[in-house]
Amino acid sequence: MPPRPSGIVALLTDFGLDDPYVGVMKGALLAAHRKAVIVDLCHRVPPQDVAAGAFMLAAAIGRFPGGTVHVAVVDPGVGSSRRLLAASAHDAFWLAPDNGLLAPVLARDPRAEVRRIDVGSLGLEPESRTFHGRDLFAPVAGWLCGGRYGFLALGPRIADPVDLEVAEGGPRVVYEDGFGNLVTSVAAAELAGVRAVRVADREVALRATYADVGQGELVALVGSFGLLEIAENRGSAARTLGTGRGAAVELVR
Amino acid sequence: MPPRPSGIVALLTDFGLDDPYVGVMKGALLAAHRKAVIVDLCHRVPPQDVAAGAFMLAAAIGRFPGGTVHVAVVDPGVGSSRRLLAASAHDAFWLAPDNGLLAPVLARDPRAEVRRIDVGSLGLEPESRTFHGRDLFAPVAGWLCGGRYGFLALGPRIADPVDLEVAEGGPRVVYEDGFGNLVTSVAAAELAGVRAVRVADREVALRATYADVGQGELVALVGSFGLLEIAENRGSAARTLGTGRGAAVELVR
Amino acid sequence: MPPRPSGIVALLTDFGLDDPYVGVMKGALLAAHRKAVIVDLCHRVPPQDVAAGAFMLAAAIGRFPGGTVHVAVVDPGVGSSRRLLAASAHDAFWLAPDNGLLAPVLARDPRAEVRRIDVGSLGLEPESRTFHGRDLFAPVAGWLCGGRYGFLALGPRIADPVDLEVAEGGPRVVYEDGFGNLVTSVAAAELAGVRAVRVADREVALRATYADVGQGELVALVGSFGLLEIAENRGSAARTLGTGRGAAVELVR
Repeated sequence: MPPRPSGIVALLTDFGLDDPYVGVMKGALLAAHRKAVIVDLCHRVPPQDVAAGAFMLAAAIGRFPGGTVHVAVVDPGVGSSRRLLAASAHDAFWLAPDNGLLAPVLARDPRAEVRRIDVGSLGLEPESRTFHGRDLFAPVAGWLCGGRYGFLALGPRIADPVDLEVAEGGPRVVYEDGFGNLVTSVAAAELAGVRAVRVADREVALRATYADVGQGELVALVGSFGLLEIAENRGSAARTLGTGRGAAVELVR
Repeated sequence: MPPRPSGIVALLTDFGLDDPYVGVMKGALLAAHRKAVIVDLCHRVPPQDVAAGAFMLAAAIGRFPGGTVHVAVVDPGVGSSRRLLAASAHDAFWLAPDNGLLAPVLARDPRAEVRRIDVGSLGLEPESRTFHGRDLFAPVAGWLCGGRYGFLALGPRIADPVDLEVAEGGPRVVYEDGFGNLVTSVAAAELAGVRAVRVADREVALRATYADVGQGELVALVGSFGLLEIAENRGSAARTLGTGRGAAVELVR
Repeated sequence: MPPRPSGIVALLTDFGLDDPYVGVMKGALLAAHRKAVIVDLCHRVPPQDVAAGAFMLAAAIGRFPGGTVHVAVVDPGVGSSRRLLAASAHDAFWLAPDNGLLAPVLARDPRAEVRRIDVGSLGLEPESRTFHGRDLFAPVAGWLCGGRYGFLALGPRIADPVDLEVAEGGPRVVYEDGFGNLVTSVAAAELAGVRAVRVADREVALRATYADVGQGELVALVGSFGLLEIAENRGSAARTLGTGRGAAVELVR
C-alpha cells in the first residue's frame, strides 16, 4: 500500500545554485500545491551524473517522514522520449526520469512499486523541452503531495525500470563527498575481522571515528551512509591519496 | 487591482551562500511575519550585477502562486539615497531598489503599478547603511505578505522607475547560466524560417532539444526561458565558444 | 525563563552544499517534528572552523523570532566524548557541540543558561559516529521545537562550557566575508573620534557607506554586524590588501 502523503517534497537535482532554475521549480510546485513543504536534499549533483545522483538519493531512504515525495532530476535525456517514473518504496514516493536514478532505492525495497507517469492523461503538456523539472515533475509532485492525484492514478504499473550499470569486480569507491571522504561499496556488516583497507597503494587502519587518529592522518571507518569510508582527520583523503570514485579497495584481515 | 498575498515570499539576492546574510534576512522576515513561506529564487546573482539579477527575476514571472511577494536585492547603491520600490505586476508583488532590477518585470505588464516605499511613514529606520535587505526589505515584505500593510499603504505611486540600459544593435547573449548555456535576446516567436545561429564565428544548427545532437556538439534551441539558447550537449557552450554575455548573435535563414 | 518555542529551527553547519548531508539532517528534524519551519543560517562555515562558525552564529542573535531553536554543527570532535550543549539565551535556544561555538552567544547574555544534553536519558543512541547533526542534534531540535521535551528536560545545568581562545593584543580582523569585506573586532561605540583605520600598511578613511568613496576605493565603515569593516566599493578589500582574518588593525584619531 502506498503511504499517505506527508505534505513534504524533497528535491534532488543537478541544477546547481547559480541560476534561478531550482527557485522556479519550487514556484511551479507551490503553484500546484500551495501548502507543500519543500526541502532541498541537494542541488549540486555533478551535472548529468546519474550514478552520483542515485547514490545521493538513496541517502534519503528512511530519513524523512513517511509519505514524503522525493523528486530527483538528473536528466541527460530531457526532451527525448525517456519515460518519467513514480515509485512507491520505503514508505515514501520517488519521482525521477527513467535512467537508473531510482535503481538503488528500488533495489533496497522488495515491495517497491513503479509506475510510468502518464503525462498526457494528467493533462500536462510540457512548455519546454529542456526543463521537465519545472514543467512536469513539479506539478506531478505537488498534485501527489496535495492529494489531487493518488499514486495509482499517475499512470500504469511497469516492471522494467532502467537499471544502473554497476562496475564489475570487487569493492570500490562509490562516492566522493565535498570534504574528500571516499565512500566505498562495503557495508558495515562486511567488516567482521577486517583490520585495515588498502586503497591507492596505501594501507589505512580501520577505526571507530575521526578522532582515533591524529590530525592529517588517514582513517577507515563506518561513515554515516552505513558504508566503509576512507577519510583524513581534518583533511581530504581524496587529495592525499590522489584518487576518487571508481578506485578499487581491498579489505585487509 | 493588486492581488491578495499568497503568504509566499521569494528571494533573489547577490549575497551568496558563504555568509549568514541570507539567513539573517530570513530571520528578519519571519520576525515581521511568522507564517511567511520563504523560497529562494537564487542568491548567486553575480555581485552587484543588476542586469543579470533583472534577467533572473523575470524568470519568476508567472511561475509562483498569485500574490507571491518577490524581493530582489542587488543593490550597489545601498546606503545612498536611491529609492526602494514596490510594484504590483503579473498578479504578484515585487520589491527592489530603484536601479533597473525591476525593469523587465515592469516592461512585460502594461498594468504594472509602481510605488516608492515610504520607509519613514512605515516606521522603519535602517539599523545599518549596508544591509537594507535585512533592515528594510525583509520587514516590508513580511508586512505585505502578512497583511499588516496593503500594497497601497507602502508609499506614493511613481511613474519614473529607473530603467535598464539596453545594448544597441541586434540580438545578443543576455545570460550565461551555470552550465555554460548562452541565452539570447531572441524570443521563440522570432524564429520562423531560421535554420541556424551564427555566434563567435560558428554556425550552430537550430534543433528542438539537446538529444538532437551528439555528445559534445553545439545546438541552438528554444530553452526554458522561452528564448533562443546556444548549448552544448553535456558540455559548456560558453567554454567551447569562448564567449559569453553581450556576444552578438546572427539568425541564419 | 526559557522562551516558548516559535516553531522555527535555524541551522548553521560546515556541511557545505555539495552533498546530501544538510538535506538528510532536515529530514531527520522533520521526522522528529513534522511542523518545524527550517531556515538555513549558513552551511558554508569553513570546514571545522569553530571560530568562524561562532562569529556567524552570533550574527543571528536577536534577528529571528523569539523562541527560535538555533542549531550549530561545526564539530571537529564528532564521535569523541565532547559534550553536546543546549543553551537558553537572547530569548532563543542554541544547540551545539561544546567546543566554543556558543561562546560569543553566551558572552553577550548575562542571563544565559547552559545545559548538557543528556543523550541517553532522551532515549537517543547515535546511529553513526560521524554525523551527530543527523543522529542527535536534529531529533533534539525537533523535540524542543515541537514541545516533546522542554529545555529543562534536556539535561543537567552546567557552568563550564568550553570557551573560544581569543587572540591577544589589540583590534583585529575577525571575519572575512564572501565579498572580501574585512570585519574587525571594533564595535561602533569605540569609534568616537576615529577618522581612519590602519590595516596592512594602508590608511583607510572612516565613512558612512560604500557610496561615499569611488568605485574600487577602500572604505572603513560600520557594517551590518555593528562592527568596523574595511571594504572596497564594488571590489574585494581582502584581495586588494592581501590580508584576512587575524590581521591587526589600528584606529587613527
